[in-house]
Amino acid sequence: MSEFNLIEIIRARTAQSRGDVVLGIGDDAALLKPPAGQQLVACTDTLVAGVHFPQGTAPQDIGWKSLAVNLSDLAAMGATPAWAMLALTLPKADRRFVETFADGFAQLARAHAVNLVGGDTTQGPLSVTVSAFGFSPESRALLRSGARVGDAVFVTGTLGDAAAALRLKQDSGLGTRDPSNEQARSELLLRLNRPEPRIAAGLALRDVASACIDVSDGLLADLGHICEASGMGAVVEADALPLSSAMLALFDADERRAFALSGGDDYELCFTASVDRADRIAADFARLGFGAARIGRIVAEAGVRVRDANGNAVEPPRRGWQHFAP
Amino acid sequence: MSEFNLIEIIRARTAQSRGDVVLGIGDDAALLKPPAGQQLVACTDTLVAGVHFPQGTAPQDIGWKSLAVNLSDLAAMGATPAWAMLALTLPKADRRFVETFADGFAQLARAHAVNLVGGDTTQGPLSVTVSAFGFSPESRALLRSGARVGDAVFVTGTLGDAAAALRLKQDSGLGTRDPSNEQARSELLLRLNRPEPRIAAGLALRDVASACIDVSDGLLADLGHICEASGMGAVVEADALPLSSAMLALFDADERRAFALSGGDDYELCFTASVDRADRIAADFARLGFGAARIGRIVAEAGVRVRDANGNAVEPPRRGWQHFAP
Repeated sequence: MSEFNLIEIIRARTAQSRGDVVLGIGDDAALLKPPAGQQLVACTDTLVAGVHFPQGTAPQDIGWKSLAVNLSDLAAMGATPAWAMLALTLPKADRRFVETFADGFAQLARAHAVNLVGGDTTQGPLSVTVSAFGFSPESRALLRSGARVGDAVFVTGTLGDAAAALRLKQDSGLGTRDPSNEQARSELLLRLNRPEPRIAAGLALRDVASACIDVSDGLLADLGHICEASGMGAVVEADALPLSSAMLALFDADERRAFALSGGDDYELCFTASVDRADRIAADFARLGFGAARIGRIVAEAGVRVRDANGNAVEPPRRGWQHFAP
Repeated sequence: MSEFNLIEIIRARTAQSRGDVVLGIGDDAALLKPPAGQQLVACTDTLVAGVHFPQGTAPQDIGWKSLAVNLSDLAAMGATPAWAMLALTLPKADRRFVETFADGFAQLARAHAVNLVGGDTTQGPLSVTVSAFGFSPESRALLRSGARVGDAVFVTGTLGDAAAALRLKQDSGLGTRDPSNEQARSELLLRLNRPEPRIAAGLALRDVASACIDVSDGLLADLGHICEASGMGAVVEADALPLSSAMLALFDADERRAFALSGGDDYELCFTASVDRADRIAADFARLGFGAARIGRIVAEAGVRVRDANGNAVEPPRRGWQHFAP
């Protein structure tokens, strides 16, 4: 980095002052002080241009999203976020790109008091790998493996919006979509480009949820992961899937269902809890501002099945987002 | 990942059983238990095909090296390695590639009791980002900023071998090189493809070195980082640079000096220490098997200067490995 120090630009824009960062960016490694008596929660996720975000996505949105997908994993564990590391690969040293990328990254980092403590910038095809770190009191992290027969299945917020936004970008508003409905279009695009990691939901679910995962690959795929890890199955009520008003305004019933069941990139939390807590959960989440909808239940038979209001099986369109699908 | 789970293949081959890993790969994030009273040392580095390793490098070497460059950063801090996370981006889901990559990664991980605790595989141009984590007793980590006027400058092992190997690959043994000297060629290539992170050296330098860095960008560039962080300068004796017998066998004096001063990818440690410890350091490092050569001293005047045996200034060929050089 002869011309300018990319990581320094990013560091300056994401500067925070956490007491648990002994030494941040600038040496061979960071020195950190995890709080006593807590477990360290750690994850990493990569976004590749053209795979995880459309080519031409604004740098500030890539910056936001690269951190968001990782904070979403921490949320799914019920962890409090603390630190992040960033590995940014760029075709060329483009100061403007780096600055706006850093702005988006920093905006989300500040909202959750996350410190950027390490980084690497390299030359190559555009991709971003972020690692995120948080804390969880011992034995209180939310796992995928705790779902039990009879548990209710919930999902936060609304489903399918990011997939719907991607469709809008692909077909430029043809078909049944109303191109004049700019507000609905903007709302969906915001959901694709600026996913909100459900940190507050994850914290509220400590000691409440029996299992939890974030919806990154699509509801069916991710609820499937809970079922596999728990040795269970699930039945989902198609008519209970929470949909945004923007989705209702722009897509027909078949499309909505397909997006909600199989669209990736939602970053909502899907979780299970015993039924006797269901009413309380609904009330608590209404207060968090984004709600939690009860969408089904855990059963003994393996697999995830979807049913309509008459109890008839709904054939899901495709099973989630497959990065390496043949 | 419909066909097979890449991260599961890697996990199986790198399985370790550290007591401080509460929950490894398989959930949304790992749960880890840092030891009480120690600082967490964390770093991340990306390798991009064609930039950080030649196209066509064997997958097992990429696997080894992607972990090695990160463990080298931990070594430079004097940390004990513990955990790693891996983000692997591949053009296609190639099981054989992943298996051999995992073999190389696991070989080095086992040697240092490192657990792979998280990972992500994505589709895209070949690149690898690894994050590595270790521990250091409070206030004992080795920083870049502690060099003082009069300190001796040391470097472990030998310098320039990786750059020499790259030259061999580029020119296929033309010029002054002896193509019949297969052993020397193999030794240099091993240094390029299988760098040994100097973990033992880093631990031995706790309470000994005043500053430390790993030589990844070239001696001049990395010693320059120590000087900048310490507000000092340095004088390097060109004739004191430690060279391998393989280098001596295959390259002439000018080439050797250029590689040793400016070649990247050595992953030796460059460190400073007060002169009254110099003899003791030499003896201690001889016992570690790779030695530490005294190559210069810290001065007040900023910048890194190189001198020959007669005290004349040596003009360095180029200042290190610049990823984003114009």
